[in-house]
Amino acid sequence: MTDPRQFMASLPFDRRLYKYDIQGSIAHARMLAKQGIIAEKEAELIVTGLTSIREELEKGTFPFRPEQEDIHMNIEARLYEKIGAVAGKLHTGRSRNDQVALDMRLFLREAIGDTVQGIRALQKALLDLAEENRGVALPGYTHLQRAQPLLLAHHLLAYFEMFQRDRGRFADGLKRAEVLPLGSGALAGVPYPVDREFLARELGFREIGRNSLDAVSDRDFVLEYQAAAAIAMVHLSRLAEELVLWSSAEFGFVEVGEEYATGSSIMPQKRNPDAAELVRGKAGRVFGHLTGFLATMKALPLSYNRDMQEDKEALFDTVDTLSSCLETMAGMLGGLRIKKERMEQAAREGYILATDLADYLVKKGVPFREAHRTLKELVAYAIKKKKGLGELDLQEYQSFSPLFEKDVLTITLESSLQARRAPGGTAPETVERALKEARKGLEAES
Amino acid sequence: MTDPRQFMASLPFDRRLYKYDIQGSIAHARMLAKQGIIAEKEAELIVTGLTSIREELEKGTFPFRPEQEDIHMNIEARLYEKIGAVAGKLHTGRSRNDQVALDMRLFLREAIGDTVQGIRALQKALLDLAEENRGVALPGYTHLQRAQPLLLAHHLLAYFEMFQRDRGRFADGLKRAEVLPLGSGALAGVPYPVDREFLARELGFREIGRNSLDAVSDRDFVLEYQAAAAIAMVHLSRLAEELVLWSSAEFGFVEVGEEYATGSSIMPQKRNPDAAELVRGKAGRVFGHLTGFLATMKALPLSYNRDMQEDKEALFDTVDTLSSCLETMAGMLGGLRIKKERMEQAAREGYILATDLADYLVKKGVPFREAHRTLKELVAYAIKKKKGLGELDLQEYQSFSPLFEKDVLTITLESSLQARRAPGGTAPETVERALKEARKGLEAES
Amino acid sequence: MTDPRQFMASLPFDRRLYKYDIQGSIAHARMLAKQGIIAEKEAELIVTGLTSIREELEKGTFPFRPEQEDIHMNIEARLYEKIGAVAGKLHTGRSRNDQVALDMRLFLREAIGDTVQGIRALQKALLDLAEENRGVALPGYTHLQRAQPLLLAHHLLAYFEMFQRDRGRFADGLKRAEVLPLGSGALAGVPYPVDREFLARELGFREIGRNSLDAVSDRDFVLEYQAAAAIAMVHLSRLAEELVLWSSAEFGFVEVGEEYATGSSIMPQKRNPDAAELVRGKAGRVFGHLTGFLATMKALPLSYNRDMQEDKEALFDTVDTLSSCLETMAGMLGGLRIKKERMEQAAREGYILATDLADYLVKKGVPFREAHRTLKELVAYAIKKKKGLGELDLQEYQSFSPLFEKDVLTITLESSLQARRAPGGTAPETVERALKEARKGLEAES
Amino acid sequence: MTDPRQFMASLPFDRRLYKYDIQGSIAHARMLAKQGIIAEKEAELIVTGLTSIREELEKGTFPFRPEQEDIHMNIEARLYEKIGAVAGKLHTGRSRNDQVALDMRLFLREAIGDTVQGIRALQKALLDLAEENRGVALPGYTHLQRAQPLLLAHHLLAYFEMFQRDRGRFADGLKRAEVLPLGSGALAGVPYPVDREFLARELGFREIGRNSLDAVSDRDFVLEYQAAAAIAMVHLSRLAEELVLWSSAEFGFVEVGEEYATGSSIMPQKRNPDAAELVRGKAGRVFGHLTGFLATMKALPLSYNRDMQEDKEALFDTVDTLSSCLETMAGMLGGLRIKKERMEQAAREGYILATDLADYLVKKGVPFREAHRTLKELVAYAIKKKKGLGELDLQEYQSFSPLFEKDVLTITLESSLQARRAPGGTAPETVERALKEARKGLEAES
Repeated sequence: MTDPRQFMASLPFDRRLYKYDIQGSIAHARMLAKQGIIAEKEAELIVTGLTSIREELEKGTFPFRPEQEDIHMNIEARLYEKIGAVAGKLHTGRSRNDQVALDMRLFLREAIGDTVQGIRALQKALLDLAEENRGVALPGYTHLQRAQPLLLAHHLLAYFEMFQRDRGRFADGLKRAEVLPLGSGALAGVPYPVDREFLARELGFREIGRNSLDAVSDRDFVLEYQAAAAIAMVHLSRLAEELVLWSSAEFGFVEVGEEYATGSSIMPQKRNPDAAELVRGKAGRVFGHLTGFLATMKALPLSYNRDMQEDKEALFDTVDTLSSCLETMAGMLGGLRIKKERMEQAAREGYILATDLADYLVKKGVPFREAHRTLKELVAYAIKKKKGLGELDLQEYQSFSPLFEKDVLTITLESSLQARRAPGGTAPETVERALKEARKGLEAES
Repeated sequence: MTDPRQFMASLPFDRRLYKYDIQGSIAHARMLAKQGIIAEKEAELIVTGLTSIREELEKGTFPFRPEQEDIHMNIEARLYEKIGAVAGKLHTGRSRNDQVALDMRLFLREAIGDTVQGIRALQKALLDLAEENRGVALPGYTHLQRAQPLLLAHHLLAYFEMFQRDRGRFADGLKRAEVLPLGSGALAGVPYPVDREFLARELGFREIGRNSLDAVSDRDFVLEYQAAAAIAMVHLSRLAEELVLWSSAEFGFVEVGEEYATGSSIMPQKRNPDAAELVRGKAGRVFGHLTGFLATMKALPLSYNRDMQEDKEALFDTVDTLSSCLETMAGMLGGLRIKKERMEQAAREGYILATDLADYLVKKGVPFREAHRTLKELVAYAIKKKKGLGELDLQEYQSFSPLFEKDVLTITLESSLQARRAPGGTAPETVERALKEARKGLEAES
Repeated sequence: MTDPRQFMASLPFDRRLYKYDIQGSIAHARMLAKQGIIAEKEAELIVTGLTSIREELEKGTFPFRPEQEDIHMNIEARLYEKIGAVAGKLHTGRSRNDQVALDMRLFLREAIGDTVQGIRALQKALLDLAEENRGVALPGYTHLQRAQPLLLAHHLLAYFEMFQRDRGRFADGLKRAEVLPLGSGALAGVPYPVDREFLARELGFREIGRNSLDAVSDRDFVLEYQAAAAIAMVHLSRLAEELVLWSSAEFGFVEVGEEYATGSSIMPQKRNPDAAELVRGKAGRVFGHLTGFLATMKALPLSYNRDMQEDKEALFDTVDTLSSCLETMAGMLGGLRIKKERMEQAAREGYILATDLADYLVKKGVPFREAHRTLKELVAYAIKKKKGLGELDLQEYQSFSPLFEKDVLTITLESSLQARRAPGGTAPETVERALKEARKGLEAES
Repeated sequence: MTDPRQFMASLPFDRRLYKYDIQGSIAHARMLAKQGIIAEKEAELIVTGLTSIREELEKGTFPFRPEQEDIHMNIEARLYEKIGAVAGKLHTGRSRNDQVALDMRLFLREAIGDTVQGIRALQKALLDLAEENRGVALPGYTHLQRAQPLLLAHHLLAYFEMFQRDRGRFADGLKRAEVLPLGSGALAGVPYPVDREFLARELGFREIGRNSLDAVSDRDFVLEYQAAAAIAMVHLSRLAEELVLWSSAEFGFVEVGEEYATGSSIMPQKRNPDAAELVRGKAGRVFGHLTGFLATMKALPLSYNRDMQEDKEALFDTVDTLSSCLETMAGMLGGLRIKKERMEQAAREGYILATDLADYLVKKGVPFREAHRTLKELVAYAIKKKKGLGELDLQEYQSFSPLFEKDVLTITLESSLQARRAPGGTAPETVERALKEARKGLEAES
């Protein structure tokens, strides 16, 4: 039988907030003293008490009391034990509602910082891998069909860009997270001459919440982090999917490092890219936390409702999952063996240069659509003859268009790559420039 | 930095499966012996070893080894320590893939049983409350507007019906969960003369999985449980919402027992229906687990992929959340104080009997739509005069329709209830019958 | 600027319900007459009027009036035009709430029937393809790594099983959909001697709703269909994923028929498996409808609330999407070209028979775990020597275990398949039996 | 039977993109000419042709061809009819992949502009309502329990803040939407000397996409809009919930204007706040589109896959739903009747001033926690005596604490409001300042 107190308790998970809670309380005590709401030495007592509680918590000697339902009450009760009735003054001009909102924002600020560092580390791993494999080509795909040849570095830089946007989203969310709720009381503001700007400065927040009711009802910052995390997981899952594909016997493009793979309990020959699969699978988990908390917040009347306690576990798990997926992915890229020959062979096979041949005709004045049709026929012919495009002779080319001349035979993987020099394209020099810019950007921000 | 082994390990959460794992292994060992695949005394050794491991696990003395990534490997390694190389024979004709699938199905079977018991207990609490408050009336609402009077018992029976359907859904899911995967090997079946029907009987399963590939790839049973749980949480959240509304000063219909409420850290007068709010909020959490795992399973090629390891945490949390919400709700209903007078007063106020007056005219031959229009005018008149319908005199009635006669003044809350005698309606005798049937049904199944 | 009436109107989408609305109204009119609540000839007038309205709707000559917000009011208003004031009697003992609930259930019953037919057609296509390719082998995969050889028919039967479960889920949902809400009034039941059992029989429903409040508040049947559809889309997306993989140059196992593929606007050589990609992508869409409507229904107080109007568009789109995906998939399988040689070549390559070699040792008394270890070493040796397992000679085998004898060289793709004869396995005779049973089952139910 | 071409066609919904498609094509043609890739007069011909096609589309005379699967091919085919083979040159250095990505971004840019305007209009309606009801007080709630008195204007400003954050989120998303994909070709870049910076300037984009592969694979901008819309719908649903609650007989705080309400088909007395309920319900719909498209995008390998076509319908519906909800809400607030007396009466009843009494003691030196305890006892006493706090006499107060003096009797609704002067609080002067700032901000941005 579920004990109702246990059902309602948040201590098992909100203890993670302890350091933010103490940080906020110390700032609050100082502000109260500065404003003359409590005495200077009362504030000192409180700060000293809180500091020693923090030490207990960090050392693991703090005596948790499950009968106190949350971390806030646990710390408060302990403060009473340590400094007596003056502990009761800490709650002047503050309620649990603005206190919890503050703690969550302090937690999230740090989490965003960590997330952004995790993304940078992954971006660095992508860049390192790209630079180490500068000249390597592979087929580019659309619809999982070989389409046009690419440089591997160019392919990896696509992910660099995705993660760059992710960082932007987390940074934008941070602006809205660094808003001070403290001083909002339970919902209506407080009847004390609190100095909220001072609190904001002390805690390093950008601004103060402009409306007390909103300040205690708002969990947008949680939703926004979760949404940004969900999008980042889309990117991670796409990269993971490619690692799984590339590790297959059919592609054979890469081999995942042993520590990121597992064997089989029954098939002795196997090396499974388990870590990549797990990253891919965990995208669903993060989506679920977003979806769930949107539903939880939907249609709650103002101001605080207990439903909002559900913000914590889902957020904590999202932060941890994203962090471990970023690190795992960075580690996995670091130990990835690139099978250069297989990649390049695949990039030379088949009809992957058909677009280049169409562009050849275009440059001789044929409208693109017409050139496209000509190539379609030419490819059909080659397939029928079981020849690759490189195996056709000039006469065969010319039977499809008189505009084909001897130089058509010089169209190769290399010339195809070279040709795509426009910014954003896969030409070696263009990619080289992109690598440099990416590296510069990454270092500038550290 | 995330250690890759730790990232992939499932031991922190799959240890919960230990008893199912041992149960399955014992059945497997017996089958192997029965079929002469291993010797009788080898099987005995294995069974004895597993039994003593189960004891260690139950007593908490089992030496967990985090370097073994899951509970299955932990048990297997321990079995080696206990009985030596013969332990290696247990894995004959079995792979981790069909083993894990089996464990999850055994777990889920028990979970479904527990869930259904939890629902029954809540249904019982609803019935008890309904019977204790047999005659109590309250307003029925549509669009949260008072619509027609109801018996409280009738209102509570609506939830009884919802939960009855929930039980049906879980029971239907059970049919598809009790299908034996064991004997499917890693994916292709096993090259030993295993007796899968024997295994099914031993483990109490309805049938054997008909396709080895499907047996190790299938997690429908997890999704189906989660979907049924999500729908059950819709019902719980609706009931929770009503308890929150009814606890407000504005409604004032009920008072939640003290152990299910909390006070405020700042407002001394408050009694907040926290447990109801939490149940409401947790609906989102359960929806999220469903959504997340659907996304995880989407587009996975056959057969087993490591992504599927994500089935566990989400399912465990759904099972636990649903269970604690059911129990909390049942407990809360048990201690609920019904403010009968407030309910009934609300059921008498205003224009709640307008439909009854329209039906009065219909019985005198007026088409319903016309009667409806007449009443609309009559209500508008009464509002303008600031009178309730009961405060109008016969003359006023007759100024809207000559068909109103003296007996129109006998239309009351009581007559309104009485009139709805058709099956499913709120008339006292109809509700009484419904209560009896519900009680009978509930007892019959226990 | 959004016109509020337009914002609230459901006519643009609920007109799809017209035939169910008329069907329900005709049954209601007949019941009213049978019970003497209206006159026989009034009922006849109403039925005649409704019948002619149905013809107008079917012919497309029905004069829709956007100012009437929904299909129900449109039909009612038209009935007035046709038969005058007696039309107003149709609404006796009925409200929009139970009427809409009825229409949705009638719609869903038909939709479930269609869905199940669509699934059967797809199962038939799977069986046909399996039977046409009886002897074809391909690699079986776990973690997208080649694991053990399979018969293609066995692989296809795995999907047959998934869709069989889907049918079970829809059928179970149908039980809960075929429950009559009519006779529940707005929420409290009706003050007329209605015969709800008669209505249930007329409309072919299994039972009557036992609680009026529940009957108008319940949309479980919508959620349950959506959940079953979401799970079915998981299966479709897995099959779609495999078709995409198999169509790639790397796998090269199949070629999708031209009408299910598209070319590229720029790359003349491409044949993209677009239809399969779309099926895969549409899984997300169906998940979204489920998630969305769960959130919509969450925490609604009893009884009817206008939020519930959101049940329609999402359900209609789910029904249509699932139906078109099932048909597209069945059609695509029908035109699929199986590249038998590529499949079988892949099933012979590499170390896919390692498990069989381990099982060989087990049969000579080696515990499975030990045999597994031996094979691991043997495979590592072969990789180093760049040989396949079939290219090793007896001496090399024996250097890993003296138990290897000459017959080890007879282990082949064929013997591997043959060995997995246990029920559910991939042995040709076992698969043949499974095909027959599947065919029999499918025909029996038609 | 679903026709495969119809299944794959996007014309039914992507025709909405026509004007962006033409805008992009015109810019592309001009750039091609400027770079000498096509002749100046070829570009002129193309631009003239496209302009006349736009006119046809706007007039509704464009001859749609369903056999051309999308709007892009329809326009291209029409261009051929109008200007002949030179039309084929428009596709030089462009593929459908970068073209579609461009069109979606152009659409979204406009949609974001419209959304932000819609939010501003709603903010204005909130401000207007707040200013018109400057002095009106109502109870503030936590846990739907009356907590402390508030000014209605303060309550409304809480929503103003939420929508302010929403605007910030959409604006941040715009930064990442205004990035030019054109010039990326199918995936690898283009072999023509295109001037992408010129294109960006022509189309008013902030920057060019830095990686061709990413440019055609990226749908982050769609997800980010959907996530911002989902959070905005959380806010709208909370406001809607309050309007529903406040419209109930129990609260009786407001009356929704007639055009936003409906009557009942059976209960003549009802005025249902349907529009508010629908807004609340539609939150689920928008959540669903986000969830669904996240699942669709998950684990897609690079670069373009047809699954991504699912971006359109969900986004269009989200844009339209959000827009109509914003407008409906603004309109509804405009016509809202505030029942000032009921609100204020509720704000004076009960024990809502208990916190103020605790703060009274705090100001006399009692630690807050102790004061809180004293008040708890005092409230319990008053409840037992069935008195409001205002009905207690000084002696009764003093029996709980000797610190209570005569001025305790001057604690009223008004003094409670006045006291909360700290920034963000509900004191009249503080709220007045907040109103002015909000108004100034709103006007500055228009």
